[in-house]
Amino acid sequence: MTPMFDPTSSLPTYEDIADAGRRLAGIAHRTPVMTSRTFDALVGARVFFKCENLQRIGAFKFRGAYNALSRLPASAGVITYSSGNHGQAIALAANLLGMRAVVVMPSSAPTVKRAAVEGYGAHVVHYDSAREQREEVAQAWVEREGLTLIPPFNHADVIAGQGTAAKELIEDAGALDYMLVPVGGGGLISGCALAAKALAPSCKVVGVEPAAGDDATRSFYSKQLQVLASVPDTIADGARTTSLGSLTFPLVLSHVDRMLTTPDAALMRAMRFFAERMKLIVEPTGALAASALLEGSVDVRAARVGVIVSGGNVDLRDLAGYFAA
Amino acid sequence: MTPMFDPTSSLPTYEDIADAGRRLAGIAHRTPVMTSRTFDALVGARVFFKCENLQRIGAFKFRGAYNALSRLPASAGVITYSSGNHGQAIALAANLLGMRAVVVMPSSAPTVKRAAVEGYGAHVVHYDSAREQREEVAQAWVEREGLTLIPPFNHADVIAGQGTAAKELIEDAGALDYMLVPVGGGGLISGCALAAKALAPSCKVVGVEPAAGDDATRSFYSKQLQVLASVPDTIADGARTTSLGSLTFPLVLSHVDRMLTTPDAALMRAMRFFAERMKLIVEPTGALAASALLEGSVDVRAARVGVIVSGGNVDLRDLAGYFAA
Repeated sequence: MTPMFDPTSSLPTYEDIADAGRRLAGIAHRTPVMTSRTFDALVGARVFFKCENLQRIGAFKFRGAYNALSRLPASAGVITYSSGNHGQAIALAANLLGMRAVVVMPSSAPTVKRAAVEGYGAHVVHYDSAREQREEVAQAWVEREGLTLIPPFNHADVIAGQGTAAKELIEDAGALDYMLVPVGGGGLISGCALAAKALAPSCKVVGVEPAAGDDATRSFYSKQLQVLASVPDTIADGARTTSLGSLTFPLVLSHVDRMLTTPDAALMRAMRFFAERMKLIVEPTGALAASALLEGSVDVRAARVGVIVSGGNVDLRDLAGYFAA
Repeated sequence: MTPMFDPTSSLPTYEDIADAGRRLAGIAHRTPVMTSRTFDALVGARVFFKCENLQRIGAFKFRGAYNALSRLPASAGVITYSSGNHGQAIALAANLLGMRAVVVMPSSAPTVKRAAVEGYGAHVVHYDSAREQREEVAQAWVEREGLTLIPPFNHADVIAGQGTAAKELIEDAGALDYMLVPVGGGGLISGCALAAKALAPSCKVVGVEPAAGDDATRSFYSKQLQVLASVPDTIADGARTTSLGSLTFPLVLSHVDRMLTTPDAALMRAMRFFAERMKLIVEPTGALAASALLEGSVDVRAARVGVIVSGGNVDLRDLAGYFAA
């Protein structure tokens, strides 16, 4: 997949995040910041978990989707491509705003994901992932129906919305020395890094992606956008992206301090910790940042550390398998 | 098992709960009150979940244990019998207060439960449940070592501590029309009912116990203490009690408005709802109150309803089995 470059988009700033925070107030959950004495003892730090698994639709994606849609006229219709959390987020946001929504997903997507999106009143369009590109399917609808495309991460209003998670975390936990953030297409970390650098300038922002999909890490250190040849094979389904985007790559380069990767086995261990010790269900992508700490990949001793727990949408049968592993 | 009657104990009052709240401030977690739009829509009410699964040691039991121990001199040693949450709670509370603790549990108790108690520095004494009574084993230690026995529920300070859960719930959620509370030996509901009647006098307090162990329901309606001949066969291990106690029975009779039961299959459905929709791990006993609402056992339409989610300590393999059922 070639990342789409949109020369009309400019990069978002912290002011856009503050604006997004006002739009989301009373609509998105101000999710709790949780702590665990046991986790702190394991890593030798004071760790603050921003629990976006408790956000509406079970993931941070609601923030960006609602922020983007709320800037459009209510008469607008929107379309996106996503079989995951962003599709559900667009569907719910459109429902709340009384807008028409179309979600393009592969015909192989699980029935439960289709049902979730349709449950919010959105229209699902299937495509054959072996023969069609989802972007082209969406583009045809944009042209035929006059819909507005809201892509999953490479969109200024989406990025600004995601940044409100870090804004709330710093407001609630106080100044942080580190903030660890999961990375897929880079929408979440772009917004969070903008917020962190504005609100806690000395806070080091660390991105964590699955080892099987290390394109963002390689892009960050080579300063050249790296694109994976195929979708990475990882249980972190929210990070099965092949590259950063035209907006998220420069934002990551400018505002992120470090990137690292973590293997799927470490994600399973972190998910088990969340379940056993914090009684929280966290999806594999949501466990990326915590797993890097548990693996000792960052020396955070004696520091105040924020961790974005990005979502909790995991099939319970899959989860049982991870626990058994 | 015959309930132990202690004529020197008097019944706790709301003032004891308020005192307990002061002792627990900054030591017990003030656990979050969570809500779910989906749950509200299912039951037609506004429901506030008091998440004691997020309490220290993963259950409300820490409240009562710490309150009871903090009233003893630091030089005292304590003993209890429990293979479950109360044993862990006593062990942690004693650790925090610098007190010696002994926990009597059957030799058949899972290694992980023994390890949890020993991890807090308590001494574990095993007994053979086929040949010995745990009360007698504990009593021998009391006499030989001068330890103070803190039983799991039939103790005024334990009851007062548990009541702080309801006090916080009403303080945080506002006035309630109903409060639903899990019932085993009755310590939690006795304290919660005292708090509810003091803080929200029109609030109806409803106790929920597993269908396989309906002694408290029968005791409540017959006004005669009913004692089961054997430990009830239910997945709600926190409610595998054979009767209410000499303190909890009169408190339940005086302050509870209604008692009902719920089958294990409904507990599994409620646990699944918590996991899928609220991303929370809840133990079977912790799901008792919510399951009664999901089953439609109480007409709470248009009401403001508090639900005590009493704990989250469940083996993840068992949980996977419940999800598959």
